[in-house]
Amino acid sequence: MNVVNNLLNYNNLKIVQNNNFFKFSLDSVLLSCFVETKECENILDIGTGNAPIPLILSTKTKSKITAVEIQKEAFCLAEESIQINKLEDQITIINEDIKNLYQEMENECFDIITCNPPYFKTENLSRINSTINLSLARHEISLNLEDIMKISKKLLKNKGSLYLVHRPERLIEIFEQMTKHNIIPKKIQFVQSKQNKESKTVLIKGVKNGNKGLKVLPIIISHEKNGEYTKEILKMFSNEVIM
Amino acid sequence: MNVVNNLLNYNNLKIVQNNNFFKFSLDSVLLSCFVETKECENILDIGTGNAPIPLILSTKTKSKITAVEIQKEAFCLAEESIQINKLEDQITIINEDIKNLYQEMENECFDIITCNPPYFKTENLSRINSTINLSLARHEISLNLEDIMKISKKLLKNKGSLYLVHRPERLIEIFEQMTKHNIIPKKIQFVQSKQNKESKTVLIKGVKNGNKGLKVLPIIISHEKNGEYTKEILKMFSNEVIM
Repeated sequence: MNVVNNLLNYNNLKIVQNNNFFKFSLDSVLLSCFVETKECENILDIGTGNAPIPLILSTKTKSKITAVEIQKEAFCLAEESIQINKLEDQITIINEDIKNLYQEMENECFDIITCNPPYFKTENLSRINSTINLSLARHEISLNLEDIMKISKKLLKNKGSLYLVHRPERLIEIFEQMTKHNIIPKKIQFVQSKQNKESKTVLIKGVKNGNKGLKVLPIIISHEKNGEYTKEILKMFSNEVIM
Repeated sequence: MNVVNNLLNYNNLKIVQNNNFFKFSLDSVLLSCFVETKECENILDIGTGNAPIPLILSTKTKSKITAVEIQKEAFCLAEESIQINKLEDQITIINEDIKNLYQEMENECFDIITCNPPYFKTENLSRINSTINLSLARHEISLNLEDIMKISKKLLKNKGSLYLVHRPERLIEIFEQMTKHNIIPKKIQFVQSKQNKESKTVLIKGVKNGNKGLKVLPIIISHEKNGEYTKEILKMFSNEVIM
Protein backbone atom coordinates (compact mmCIF):
# COMPACT_ATOMS: atom_id res chain seq x y z
CA MET A 1 0.00 0.00 0.00
CA ASN A 2 1.27 3.41 -0.88
CA VAL A 3 1.04 5.24 2.43
CA VAL A 4 1.63 8.95 2.35
CA ASN A 5 1.70 10.43 5.82
CA ASN A 6 1.00 14.09 6.27
CA LEU A 7 0.70 16.49 9.16
CA LEU A 8 -2.48 18.33 9.93
CA ASN A 9 -2.38 21.38 12.15
CA TYR A 10 -5.27 21.62 14.53
CA ASN A 11 -5.18 24.38 17.05
CA ASN A 12 -1.60 24.02 18.30
CA LEU A 13 -1.60 20.29 17.71
CA LYS A 14 0.00 18.37 14.92
CA ILE A 15 -1.94 15.28 13.89
CA VAL A 16 -0.27 12.66 11.72
CA GLN A 17 -2.59 11.11 9.18
CA ASN A 18 -2.58 9.51 5.78
CA ASN A 19 -5.09 9.47 3.00
CA ASN A 20 -5.12 5.72 2.57
CA PHE A 21 -6.83 4.83 5.78
CA PHE A 22 -6.97 7.43 8.46
CA LYS A 23 -8.01 10.95 7.85
CA PHE A 24 -8.98 13.40 10.48
CA SER A 25 -12.71 14.07 10.18
CA LEU A 26 -15.05 16.80 11.30
CA ASP A 27 -16.92 14.19 13.35
CA SER A 28 -13.92 13.84 15.70
CA VAL A 29 -13.83 17.60 16.23
CA LEU A 30 -17.56 17.75 16.84
CA LEU A 31 -17.46 14.90 19.33
CA SER A 32 -14.44 16.32 21.18
CA CYS A 33 -16.15 19.68 21.55
CA PHE A 34 -19.36 17.99 22.72
CA VAL A 35 -17.58 16.15 25.56
CA GLU A 36 -17.87 17.77 29.01
CA THR A 37 -14.56 17.11 30.76
CA LYS A 38 -15.21 18.97 34.02
CA GLU A 39 -14.21 17.03 37.15
CA CYS A 40 -13.04 14.11 35.10
CA GLU A 41 -9.99 11.97 35.87
CA ASN A 42 -9.94 9.15 33.37
CA ILE A 43 -11.07 9.03 29.79
CA LEU A 44 -11.16 6.06 27.41
CA ASP A 45 -11.39 6.48 23.63
CA ILE A 46 -12.51 3.32 21.85
CA GLY A 47 -11.45 2.70 18.26
CA THR A 48 -9.29 5.77 18.39
CA GLY A 49 -7.84 5.48 14.86
CA ASN A 50 -4.97 7.95 14.56
CA ALA A 51 -6.17 9.39 17.89
CA PRO A 52 -7.77 12.70 16.86
CA ILE A 53 -10.20 12.63 19.80
CA PRO A 54 -7.57 12.08 22.56
CA LEU A 55 -5.34 14.69 20.91
CA ILE A 56 -8.11 17.28 20.77
CA LEU A 57 -9.35 16.43 24.27
CA SER A 58 -5.81 17.04 25.57
CA THR A 59 -6.31 20.72 24.70
CA LYS A 60 -9.28 21.00 27.07
CA THR A 61 -8.53 18.69 29.98
CA LYS A 62 -5.62 17.42 32.03
CA SER A 63 -7.36 14.05 32.55
CA LYS A 64 -5.50 10.88 31.73
CA ILE A 65 -6.64 9.50 28.39
CA THR A 66 -6.41 5.85 27.33
CA ALA A 67 -6.86 5.24 23.63
CA VAL A 68 -7.35 1.81 22.06
CA GLU A 69 -6.94 0.94 18.39
CA ILE A 70 -7.07 -2.50 16.77
CA GLN A 71 -5.18 -1.56 13.60
CA LYS A 72 -1.40 -1.43 13.68
CA GLU A 73 -1.07 1.26 10.98
CA ALA A 74 -3.43 3.68 12.70
CA PHE A 75 -1.85 2.93 16.08
CA CYS A 76 1.57 3.89 14.66
CA LEU A 77 0.24 7.20 13.37
CA ALA A 78 -1.31 7.86 16.77
CA GLU A 79 1.98 7.06 18.56
CA GLU A 80 3.79 9.44 16.28
CA SER A 81 1.34 12.28 16.97
CA ILE A 82 1.54 11.71 20.71
CA GLN A 83 5.32 11.96 20.59
CA ILE A 84 5.39 15.02 18.32
CA ASN A 85 3.00 16.81 20.69
CA LYS A 86 4.85 15.54 23.80
CA LEU A 87 1.67 14.04 25.23
CA GLU A 88 3.13 10.71 26.39
CA ASP A 89 2.33 11.51 30.01
CA GLN A 90 -1.32 12.24 29.31
CA ILE A 91 -2.28 9.86 26.50
CA THR A 92 -1.66 6.11 26.60
CA ILE A 93 -2.23 4.36 23.31
CA ILE A 94 -2.79 0.60 23.14
CA ASN A 95 -2.75 -1.53 19.99
CA GLU A 96 -5.38 -4.12 20.88
CA ASP A 97 -8.90 -5.25 20.18
CA ILE A 98 -10.95 -3.48 22.86
CA LYS A 99 -13.34 -6.45 22.89
CA ASN A 100 -10.57 -8.63 24.33
CA LEU A 101 -8.93 -5.95 26.40
CA TYR A 102 -11.96 -4.65 28.30
CA GLN A 103 -12.56 -7.97 30.04
CA GLU A 104 -9.18 -7.65 31.74
CA MET A 105 -9.64 -4.01 32.68
CA GLU A 106 -10.82 -2.98 36.12
CA ASN A 107 -14.59 -2.36 36.51
CA GLU A 108 -15.84 1.24 36.72
CA CYS A 109 -12.48 2.90 36.13
CA PHE A 110 -13.44 5.62 33.62
CA ASP A 111 -15.39 8.87 34.05
CA ILE A 112 -15.84 9.24 30.34
CA ILE A 113 -15.80 6.93 27.34
CA THR A 114 -15.72 8.44 23.86
CA CYS A 115 -16.27 6.65 20.58
CA ASN A 116 -16.51 7.59 16.93
CA PRO A 117 -17.61 4.11 15.94
CA PRO A 118 -18.11 2.39 12.60
CA TYR A 119 -21.38 3.77 11.25
CA PHE A 120 -22.56 1.02 8.94
CA LYS A 121 -23.94 -2.39 9.66
CA THR A 122 -22.06 -5.24 8.04
CA GLU A 123 -25.27 -6.75 6.66
CA ASN A 124 -24.91 -4.67 3.55
CA LEU A 125 -21.72 -6.16 2.19
CA SER A 126 -21.85 -4.22 -1.04
CA ARG A 127 -21.14 -1.05 0.90
CA ILE A 128 -18.04 -2.45 2.56
CA ASN A 129 -15.00 -0.62 1.43
CA SER A 130 -12.47 -2.58 -0.56
CA THR A 131 -9.61 -1.47 1.66
CA ILE A 132 -9.73 -3.56 4.81
CA ASN A 133 -8.41 -0.77 7.02
CA LEU A 134 -11.12 1.61 5.94
CA SER A 135 -13.68 -1.18 6.30
CA LEU A 136 -12.78 -1.76 9.91
CA ALA A 137 -13.17 1.92 10.63
CA ARG A 138 -16.45 2.34 8.78
CA HIS A 139 -18.26 -0.95 9.20
CA GLU A 140 -19.21 -2.88 12.27
CA ILE A 141 -16.85 -5.74 11.49
CA SER A 142 -14.99 -5.66 14.77
CA LEU A 143 -17.11 -3.36 16.92
CA ASN A 144 -20.88 -3.00 16.90
CA LEU A 145 -23.26 -0.94 19.01
CA GLU A 146 -23.88 -3.72 21.49
CA ASP A 147 -20.12 -4.17 22.03
CA ILE A 148 -19.76 -0.46 22.79
CA MET A 149 -22.57 -0.62 25.35
CA LYS A 150 -21.23 -3.74 27.05
CA ILE A 151 -17.81 -2.16 27.31
CA SER A 152 -19.26 1.09 28.64
CA LYS A 153 -21.45 -0.71 31.16
CA LYS A 154 -18.44 -2.48 32.63
CA LEU A 155 -15.84 0.29 32.45
CA LEU A 156 -17.79 3.46 33.25
CA LYS A 157 -18.02 4.65 36.84
CA ASN A 158 -21.54 5.06 38.22
CA LYS A 159 -22.94 8.24 36.55
CA GLY A 160 -20.02 8.23 34.14
CA SER A 161 -20.70 9.34 30.58
CA LEU A 162 -20.54 7.71 27.18
CA TYR A 163 -20.13 10.12 24.24
CA LEU A 164 -20.84 8.91 20.72
CA VAL A 165 -21.02 10.44 17.28
CA HIS A 166 -23.22 8.50 14.88
CA ARG A 167 -25.69 8.60 12.01
CA PRO A 168 -29.27 9.72 12.84
CA GLU A 169 -30.70 6.89 10.71
CA ARG A 170 -29.60 4.50 13.47
CA LEU A 171 -30.86 6.57 16.38
CA ILE A 172 -33.67 4.18 17.36
CA GLU A 173 -31.26 1.26 17.61
CA ILE A 174 -28.69 3.37 19.48
CA PHE A 175 -31.30 4.40 22.07
CA GLU A 176 -32.46 0.79 22.41
CA GLN A 177 -28.95 -0.49 22.98
CA MET A 178 -28.10 2.29 25.42
CA THR A 179 -31.27 1.80 27.45
CA LYS A 180 -30.82 -1.98 27.47
CA HIS A 181 -27.40 -1.51 29.09
CA ASN A 182 -28.57 1.23 31.43
CA ILE A 183 -26.59 3.98 29.69
CA ILE A 184 -29.43 6.51 29.71
CA PRO A 185 -29.49 9.00 26.80
CA LYS A 186 -29.31 12.47 28.36
CA LYS A 187 -28.26 14.89 25.63
CA ILE A 188 -28.26 14.78 21.88
CA GLN A 189 -27.21 17.36 19.34
CA PHE A 190 -27.82 17.15 15.63
CA VAL A 191 -25.54 18.52 12.94
CA GLN A 192 -26.78 19.67 9.55
CA SER A 193 -24.42 20.52 6.69
CA LYS A 194 -26.72 23.38 5.62
CA GLN A 195 -29.77 25.19 6.97
CA ASN A 196 -32.17 23.27 4.73
CA LYS A 197 -30.53 19.83 4.77
CA GLU A 198 -31.43 16.72 6.71
CA SER A 199 -29.13 15.93 9.60
CA LYS A 200 -26.49 13.32 8.82
CA THR A 201 -24.66 13.46 12.16
CA VAL A 202 -25.79 13.17 15.75
CA LEU A 203 -23.82 13.61 18.96
CA ILE A 204 -25.08 11.57 21.90
CA LYS A 205 -24.34 11.67 25.62
CA GLY A 206 -25.51 8.79 27.79
CA VAL A 207 -25.08 8.50 31.56
CA LYS A 208 -24.59 5.16 33.28
CA ASN A 209 -27.54 4.65 35.66
CA GLY A 210 -28.73 8.17 34.82
CA ASN A 211 -32.26 9.46 35.24
CA LYS A 212 -34.59 9.64 32.27
CA GLY A 213 -35.16 12.92 30.46
CA LEU A 214 -33.53 13.84 27.18
CA LYS A 215 -32.25 17.28 26.19
CA VAL A 216 -31.96 18.21 22.54
CA LEU A 217 -29.26 20.87 22.24
CA PRO A 218 -29.39 23.63 19.61
CA ILE A 219 -28.68 22.50 16.05
CA ILE A 220 -25.14 22.84 14.69
CA ILE A 221 -25.01 23.99 11.07
CA SER A 222 -21.58 23.11 9.68
CA HIS A 223 -21.45 24.92 6.34
CA GLU A 224 -22.50 28.23 4.85
CA LYS A 225 -24.38 28.41 1.56
CA ASN A 226 -21.07 29.03 -0.22
CA GLY A 227 -19.65 25.77 1.16
CA GLU A 228 -17.34 27.32 3.75
CA TYR A 229 -17.42 26.30 7.40
CA THR A 230 -19.79 28.32 9.58
CA LYS A 231 -18.42 30.54 12.35
CA GLU A 232 -19.57 27.94 14.89
CA ILE A 233 -17.36 25.26 13.31
CA LEU A 234 -14.43 27.62 12.82
CA LYS A 235 -14.60 28.43 16.54
CA MET A 236 -14.22 24.73 17.28
CA PHE A 237 -10.94 24.81 15.39
CA SER A 238 -9.66 27.63 17.55
CA ASN A 239 -9.06 27.90 21.28
CA GLU A 240 -12.37 29.67 21.86
CA VAL A 241 -14.46 26.55 22.23
CA ILE A 242 -11.74 24.00 22.83
CA MET A 243 -10.85 25.55 26.19
CA MET B 1 -66.89 28.87 34.41
CA ASN B 2 -66.70 32.12 32.55
CA VAL B 3 -66.24 30.99 28.99
CA VAL B 4 -65.44 33.67 26.46
CA ASN B 5 -65.43 32.29 22.97
CA ASN B 6 -63.48 34.07 20.29
CA LEU B 7 -62.74 33.57 16.63
CA LEU B 8 -59.24 33.10 15.32
CA ASN B 9 -58.55 33.58 11.65
CA TYR B 10 -56.16 31.07 10.21
CA ASN B 11 -55.60 31.19 6.51
CA ASN B 12 -59.20 31.41 5.31
CA LEU B 13 -60.47 29.42 8.26
CA LYS B 14 -62.24 30.63 11.34
CA ILE B 15 -61.43 28.65 14.45
CA VAL B 16 -63.61 29.02 17.52
CA GLN B 17 -61.65 28.90 20.76
CA ASN B 18 -61.77 30.18 24.29
CA ASN B 19 -59.10 31.14 26.74
CA ASN B 20 -60.37 28.98 29.56
CA PHE B 21 -59.56 25.62 28.08
CA PHE B 22 -58.88 25.45 24.43
CA LYS B 23 -56.55 27.74 22.66
CA PHE B 24 -55.14 27.19 19.27
CA SER B 25 -51.43 26.49 19.58
CA LEU B 26 -48.43 26.64 17.27
CA ASP B 27 -47.96 22.90 17.82
CA SER B 28 -51.18 22.18 15.93
CA VAL B 29 -50.00 24.27 12.99
CA LEU B 30 -46.58 22.60 13.02
CA LEU B 31 -48.09 19.12 13.09
CA SER B 32 -50.62 19.87 10.37
CA CYS B 33 -47.87 21.18 8.09
CA PHE B 34 -45.71 18.13 8.87
CA VAL B 35 -48.44 15.68 7.77
CA GLU B 36 -48.09 14.30 4.24
CA THR B 37 -51.63 13.90 2.91
CA LYS B 38 -50.84 12.66 -0.61
CA GLU B 39 -52.94 9.67 -1.72
CA CYS B 40 -54.76 9.59 1.56
CA GLU B 41 -58.46 8.79 1.98
CA ASN B 42 -59.18 8.69 5.68
CA ILE B 43 -57.66 10.62 8.53
CA LEU B 44 -58.29 10.27 12.26
CA ASP B 45 -57.36 13.00 14.74
CA ILE B 46 -57.22 11.76 18.33
CA GLY B 47 -57.89 14.18 21.19
CA THR B 48 -58.79 16.84 18.71
CA GLY B 49 -59.70 19.57 21.24
CA ASN B 50 -61.41 22.38 19.35
CA ALA B 51 -60.26 20.62 16.16
CA PRO B 52 -57.45 22.87 14.93
CA ILE B 53 -55.67 19.97 13.20
CA PRO B 54 -58.68 18.72 11.19
CA LEU B 55 -59.55 22.30 10.29
CA ILE B 56 -56.04 23.07 9.05
CA LEU B 57 -55.73 19.71 7.27
CA SER B 58 -58.95 20.51 5.40
CA THR B 59 -57.04 23.28 3.61
CA LYS B 60 -54.53 20.81 2.16
CA THR B 61 -56.50 17.61 1.50
CA LYS B 62 -59.94 16.48 0.43
CA SER B 63 -59.64 13.33 2.59
CA LYS B 64 -62.39 12.51 5.04
CA ILE B 65 -61.36 13.45 8.56
CA THR B 66 -62.73 11.90 11.74
CA ALA B 67 -61.98 13.85 14.91
CA VAL B 68 -62.55 12.52 18.43
CA GLU B 69 -62.70 14.59 21.60
CA ILE B 70 -63.60 13.40 25.10
CA GLN B 71 -64.53 16.84 26.47
CA LYS B 72 -67.97 18.24 25.76
CA GLU B 73 -66.91 21.89 25.84
CA ALA B 74 -64.09 21.45 23.34
CA PHE B 75 -66.33 19.27 21.17
CA CYS B 76 -68.92 22.07 21.04
CA LEU B 77 -66.31 24.58 19.94
CA ALA B 78 -65.12 22.16 17.26
CA GLU B 79 -68.70 21.64 16.01
CA GLU B 80 -69.19 25.37 15.79
CA SER B 81 -65.99 25.83 13.75
CA ILE B 82 -66.92 23.01 11.39
CA GLN B 83 -70.31 24.62 10.76
CA ILE B 84 -68.91 28.13 10.31
CA ASN B 85 -66.43 26.83 7.76
CA LYS B 86 -69.05 24.59 6.10
CA LEU B 87 -66.88 21.50 6.54
CA GLU B 88 -69.59 19.11 7.74
CA ASP B 89 -69.11 16.89 4.68
CA GLN B 90 -65.39 16.51 5.25
CA ILE B 91 -64.95 16.53 9.03
CA THR B 92 -66.90 14.28 11.39
CA ILE B 93 -66.52 15.17 15.04
CA ILE B 94 -67.34 12.65 17.77
CA ASN B 95 -67.69 13.42 21.48
CA GLU B 96 -66.34 10.19 22.96
CA ASP B 97 -63.40 8.65 24.77
CA ILE B 98 -61.28 7.25 21.95
CA LYS B 99 -60.16 4.46 24.28
CA ASN B 100 -63.72 3.08 24.27
CA LEU B 101 -64.55 4.02 20.73
CA TYR B 102 -61.60 2.47 18.93
CA GLN B 103 -62.48 -1.05 20.00
CA GLU B 104 -65.72 -0.77 18.05
CA MET B 105 -64.10 0.78 14.99
CA GLU B 106 -63.17 -1.32 11.99
CA ASN B 107 -59.54 -2.54 11.85
CA GLU B 108 -57.11 -0.83 9.47
CA CYS B 109 -59.50 1.86 8.27
CA PHE B 110 -57.26 4.98 8.39
CA ASP B 111 -54.35 6.06 6.20
CA ILE B 112 -53.26 8.64 8.71
CA ILE B 113 -53.70 9.20 12.43
CA THR B 114 -52.70 12.54 13.92
CA CYS B 115 -52.37 13.40 17.58
CA ASN B 116 -51.26 16.39 19.62
CA PRO B 117 -51.37 14.41 22.85
CA PRO B 118 -51.05 15.36 26.51
CA TYR B 119 -47.33 15.98 27.06
CA PHE B 120 -46.93 15.34 30.76
CA LYS B 121 -47.01 12.16 32.74
CA THR B 122 -49.55 12.13 35.55
CA GLU B 123 -46.95 10.97 38.07
CA ASN B 124 -46.07 14.55 38.82
CA LEU B 125 -49.35 15.64 40.34
CA SER B 126 -48.09 19.03 41.40
CA ARG B 127 -47.88 20.03 37.77
CA ILE B 128 -51.45 19.11 37.04
CA ASN B 129 -53.43 22.15 36.14
CA SER B 130 -56.20 23.13 38.49
CA THR B 131 -58.74 23.37 35.70
CA ILE B 132 -59.84 19.85 34.87
CA ASN B 133 -60.33 20.60 31.19
CA LEU B 134 -56.82 21.89 30.79
CA SER B 135 -55.53 18.94 32.79
CA LEU B 136 -57.09 16.44 30.44
CA ALA B 137 -55.50 18.19 27.50
CA ARG B 138 -52.06 18.53 29.05
CA HIS B 139 -51.64 15.46 31.22
CA GLU B 140 -51.94 11.81 30.44
CA ILE B 141 -55.04 11.37 32.58
CA SER B 142 -57.20 9.87 29.87
CA LEU B 143 -54.70 9.12 27.09
CA ASN B 144 -51.10 7.99 27.42
CA LEU B 145 -48.47 7.04 24.85
CA GLU B 146 -49.27 3.36 25.03
CA ASP B 147 -52.97 4.06 24.40
CA ILE B 148 -52.07 6.06 21.28
CA MET B 149 -49.91 3.22 19.97
CA LYS B 150 -52.52 0.55 20.65
CA ILE B 151 -55.14 2.63 18.87
CA SER B 152 -52.81 3.29 15.93
CA LYS B 153 -51.82 -0.36 15.65
CA LYS B 154 -55.45 -1.38 15.32
CA LEU B 155 -56.82 1.45 13.20
CA LEU B 156 -54.00 2.26 10.77
CA LYS B 157 -53.88 0.51 7.42
CA ASN B 158 -50.69 -1.42 6.67
CA LYS B 159 -48.01 1.24 5.94
CA GLY B 160 -50.35 3.92 7.26
CA SER B 161 -48.78 6.79 9.21
CA LEU B 162 -49.02 8.10 12.73
CA TYR B 163 -48.08 11.76 13.18
CA LEU B 164 -47.36 13.11 16.65
CA VAL B 165 -46.13 16.35 18.13
CA HIS B 166 -44.45 15.91 21.50
CA ARG B 167 -41.70 16.99 23.87
CA PRO B 168 -38.13 15.87 23.07
CA GLU B 169 -37.53 14.97 26.72
CA ARG B 170 -39.82 11.97 26.17
CA LEU B 171 -38.35 10.87 22.85
CA ILE B 172 -36.77 7.66 24.18
CA GLU B 173 -40.08 6.48 25.60
CA ILE B 174 -41.95 7.51 22.45
CA PHE B 175 -39.57 5.49 20.26
CA GLU B 176 -39.87 2.52 22.63
CA GLN B 177 -43.65 2.58 22.55
CA MET B 178 -43.78 3.04 18.78
CA THR B 179 -41.35 0.19 18.11
CA LYS B 180 -43.14 -2.07 20.58
CA HIS B 181 -46.35 -1.63 18.58
CA ASN B 182 -44.60 -1.86 15.22
CA ILE B 183 -45.18 1.78 14.33
CA ILE B 184 -41.64 2.38 13.04
CA PRO B 185 -40.27 5.93 13.48
CA LYS B 186 -39.40 7.18 9.98
CA LYS B 187 -39.09 10.95 10.18
CA ILE B 188 -38.58 13.40 12.97
CA GLN B 189 -38.22 17.16 12.93
CA PHE B 190 -37.18 19.30 15.84
CA VAL B 191 -38.39 22.82 16.52
CA GLN B 192 -36.32 25.41 18.39
CA SER B 193 -37.76 28.72 19.53
CA LYS B 194 -34.46 30.47 18.73
CA GLN B 195 -31.20 29.62 16.99
CA ASN B 196 -29.35 29.01 20.27
CA LYS B 197 -32.13 27.37 22.31
CA GLU B 198 -32.68 23.72 23.13
CA SER B 199 -35.52 22.10 21.23
CA LYS B 200 -38.80 21.89 23.14
CA THR B 201 -40.92 20.41 20.37
CA VAL B 202 -40.52 17.40 18.11
CA LEU B 203 -42.65 16.23 15.21
CA ILE B 204 -42.67 12.48 14.63
CA LYS B 205 -43.87 10.30 11.77
CA GLY B 206 -44.15 6.57 12.30
CA VAL B 207 -45.20 4.01 9.72
CA LYS B 208 -47.12 0.86 10.64
CA ASN B 209 -44.94 -2.14 9.71
CA GLY B 210 -42.45 0.27 8.13
CA ASN B 211 -38.79 -0.47 7.47
CA LYS B 212 -36.14 0.80 9.85
CA GLY B 213 -34.16 3.94 9.03
CA LEU B 214 -34.85 7.32 10.54
CA LYS B 215 -34.63 10.66 8.76
CA VAL B 216 -34.02 13.84 10.74
CA LEU B 217 -35.49 16.73 8.77
CA PRO B 218 -33.97 20.23 8.83
CA ILE B 219 -34.50 22.14 12.06
CA ILE B 220 -37.43 24.57 12.31
CA ILE B 221 -36.62 27.80 14.11
CA SER B 222 -39.88 29.40 15.20
CA HIS B 223 -38.84 32.87 16.39
CA GLU B 224 -36.47 35.63 15.39
CA LYS B 225 -34.20 37.28 17.96
CA ASN B 226 -36.75 40.08 18.33
CA GLY B 227 -39.44 37.55 19.31
CA GLU B 228 -41.38 37.66 16.06
CA TYR B 229 -42.21 34.52 14.09
CA THR B 230 -39.62 33.48 11.51
CA LYS B 231 -40.49 33.55 7.80
CA GLU B 232 -40.74 29.76 7.88
CA ILE B 233 -43.51 29.88 10.49
CA LEU B 234 -45.27 32.80 8.82
CA LYS B 235 -45.37 30.75 5.61
CA MET B 236 -47.17 28.00 7.49
CA PHE B 237 -49.88 30.52 8.33
CA SER B 238 -50.33 31.36 4.67
CA ASN B 239 -51.34 29.22 1.71
CA GLU B 240 -47.75 28.76 0.59
CA VAL B 241 -47.03 25.75 2.75
CA ILE B 242 -50.54 24.75 3.64
CA MET B 243 -51.29 23.79 0.03
